[in-house]
Amino acid sequence: MNNEIPSSVQVMNAVEKQRALAEKLFDTLVELSRDPEGGVTRAPYSPEETGIHKRFGEIAEELGLKVTTDAMANTYMTLQGSDPAAKKIMTGSHLDSVKQGGNFDGAAGVVAGLVACAALKELGIRPHCDVSVMGVRAEESAWFGVSYIGSRGALGTLPDGALNVKRVDSGLTLVDGIRNEGGDSDAAAARKKTFEPSELRCFLELHIEQGPLLDRDGLPVGICTAIPGNFRFPNARVIGEYGHVGLLKAWRRDAVTAASEFVVAMDELWAQSEADGKPMACTIGVFSTDPELHAMTKVPGELNFTLDVRCYNSEHLKELEEKTYEIIRAIEERRKVRFEIGKTARAAVGEMSPTISSDFERIANELKIPNCRLGSPASHDSAAFAEAGVPTAMIFVRNANGSHNPDEAMTIDDFLQATAIMTKWIADASQQTI
Amino acid sequence: MNNEIPSSVQVMNAVEKQRALAEKLFDTLVELSRDPEGGVTRAPYSPEETGIHKRFGEIAEELGLKVTTDAMANTYMTLQGSDPAAKKIMTGSHLDSVKQGGNFDGAAGVVAGLVACAALKELGIRPHCDVSVMGVRAEESAWFGVSYIGSRGALGTLPDGALNVKRVDSGLTLVDGIRNEGGDSDAAAARKKTFEPSELRCFLELHIEQGPLLDRDGLPVGICTAIPGNFRFPNARVIGEYGHVGLLKAWRRDAVTAASEFVVAMDELWAQSEADGKPMACTIGVFSTDPELHAMTKVPGELNFTLDVRCYNSEHLKELEEKTYEIIRAIEERRKVRFEIGKTARAAVGEMSPTISSDFERIANELKIPNCRLGSPASHDSAAFAEAGVPTAMIFVRNANGSHNPDEAMTIDDFLQATAIMTKWIADASQQTI
Repeated sequence: MNNEIPSSVQVMNAVEKQRALAEKLFDTLVELSRDPEGGVTRAPYSPEETGIHKRFGEIAEELGLKVTTDAMANTYMTLQGSDPAAKKIMTGSHLDSVKQGGNFDGAAGVVAGLVACAALKELGIRPHCDVSVMGVRAEESAWFGVSYIGSRGALGTLPDGALNVKRVDSGLTLVDGIRNEGGDSDAAAARKKTFEPSELRCFLELHIEQGPLLDRDGLPVGICTAIPGNFRFPNARVIGEYGHVGLLKAWRRDAVTAASEFVVAMDELWAQSEADGKPMACTIGVFSTDPELHAMTKVPGELNFTLDVRCYNSEHLKELEEKTYEIIRAIEERRKVRFEIGKTARAAVGEMSPTISSDFERIANELKIPNCRLGSPASHDSAAFAEAGVPTAMIFVRNANGSHNPDEAMTIDDFLQATAIMTKWIADASQQTI
Repeated sequence: MNNEIPSSVQVMNAVEKQRALAEKLFDTLVELSRDPEGGVTRAPYSPEETGIHKRFGEIAEELGLKVTTDAMANTYMTLQGSDPAAKKIMTGSHLDSVKQGGNFDGAAGVVAGLVACAALKELGIRPHCDVSVMGVRAEESAWFGVSYIGSRGALGTLPDGALNVKRVDSGLTLVDGIRNEGGDSDAAAARKKTFEPSELRCFLELHIEQGPLLDRDGLPVGICTAIPGNFRFPNARVIGEYGHVGLLKAWRRDAVTAASEFVVAMDELWAQSEADGKPMACTIGVFSTDPELHAMTKVPGELNFTLDVRCYNSEHLKELEEKTYEIIRAIEERRKVRFEIGKTARAAVGEMSPTISSDFERIANELKIPNCRLGSPASHDSAAFAEAGVPTAMIFVRNANGSHNPDEAMTIDDFLQATAIMTKWIADASQQTI
């Protein structure tokens, strides 16, 4: 075993030698999840997702990694360290996708972990601590309405009742899905942790950008500053009163006008926040009068909507939620309507480790890989690790056409550059004792 | 025959004596159209509507009126004048209703005509000209998506293709409905007029208010200043682009935000118009993202909406339509979206006869019936007559709970007062030769 730490360039060359492995893994993913209607579909806790976990496990074993699973049916592919008691370096991402999604969202992070382990072996490195590649189950919230299921399950931080939620399309309960696909549903229901956060030295996640900011700016790599926290109204309503098309303005309790004022006020809040140098995003994705009751010649008495507000700072997020309620109260008073916001969902801001992020930046610069700091627009498994107190870092890879669609366009060149940065960090860290 | 013109008070007393007739006619209406789910339902060109036309015809014959029908299956119940060639006084309204509507919207105008004829007979008046009570078919646009079908059919002013439209619920074509319910569908299809506008001296319509402004102000009667013209977008869309929930503000082409800006801008246009003393109304009744494609965590790429803008002055209406397009163009540019407004529907402003309206006001004052001038919030058959050049006037009766619902609340006292005003005008006019 060579325990001299290789240079950035040596690591880069070792990663470059894994190009065929990376291509094989990406091809395998497409083969096992191609959707006849376009793109790939890897529903969480489906036979397709399980098939990918199994095949990745087989390939990992061929690479000499130790393969295990946990109660949530997550897969761990581990390059074993010389000290099994040392804090583990964990890396990975999710292997599920949205319906008719793209091949890279999530899966690229698992491929990167396997490529990193293969490169470490190539370099003859036997790490001091375990380097474990986690294939995470069920990250995408579109299916069960709950996000980070696999990672939060492993960390024991799933919310109450999460195991009883149903898949929105098929009605399959999560607990049945876990049981069907090889998990231990009793242990999952009992919230058995796979590991304590204190057992992990870090969680590293490579992911395609959703931007496409890197693509616009011609940068192959972005280093994540934070994963946004959010608050959401999954099921909100504005209640006014239906009325005759000729009803006087002063007498209307018009749900559409009131709701539209809300949208415009939230848009202004966003513009002001950006002007103040505080990035955020606000999305009102569902916005609809009642098809059973609305009509061209009727003052609309009800409107259903959703809200997703996200930003990178906990204080800012709190302030935005307070301002949202202020906006609502003012409209309620002015328009004589009532907002029923329903159950509010919240996710904490995912803080990234400043140390690891700086290391990533330094390594990228050593390798002359153009890069920038980048706030994650979306949520990721990393947020679950960060919230549990694990030092966490993310690296984004340039991707032209946004994520969650069949046109995701990451090049293998960019992927290998980003993976090299992460691999060099692991090479350095896995030989230090902390 | 007594050809001395009776005083207002004499007419009022004669009308008051028809209270039982009025009550009987209103009871008959409920009996023939009660909806088991609430209110009354008199679909246009349905057996229920036809049943009411037939029963009203029978009662009219008992009153000594001559009963005829036309190609559109409208019913005319005529107190014959001494000079059949003299220009006719026509009064009436529609006998159809919205689904689960109230008993008075439309029908009150037909009952008023029959009560007026009965009162004229009671007073011993043989009019010089025919006084004809028109029971109009199919005024409500909710069923076939076309308004004033019966009256415009009689006037030969139905739009091209109107007879081929389908009932939105059952799919019955209008031409089949006309044939089924006793009309002459071939003549209707050939746009055979029942009469020339020049054969009519006037069209008078009594109708419950939609307000309830009269109710608020404690006035039993309102005299109509005008029926609003309108322009409508029955099927408009805002086309943006779907995107990831984390997409930057500058890159979004958000259909909901753009459409909401439109709603707020139209609301401001309305407020400004009222501040300028130009009454109008603007209704965006349907407003909806696509249930197949929208999601809480997706920037909305499309929104469907309807628009109804109405006012009482042709120039003002034209100006409002131009301003609407200006608002749309500005939003398209600012928000990088496209408005597809689809086919625009338009209805001309229904101008009321100043002479008849002044006469109504004078008579009301003679009878000490508190009254005011009132712009009609809604459209009425009168608009079709006014557009055809017939001198037209409307009188509104106080009604507490709005129209088009089972809670319409007109009292017989108010109804008889309003009918007395109209009857006195007919008594005066029917004995003059013009």
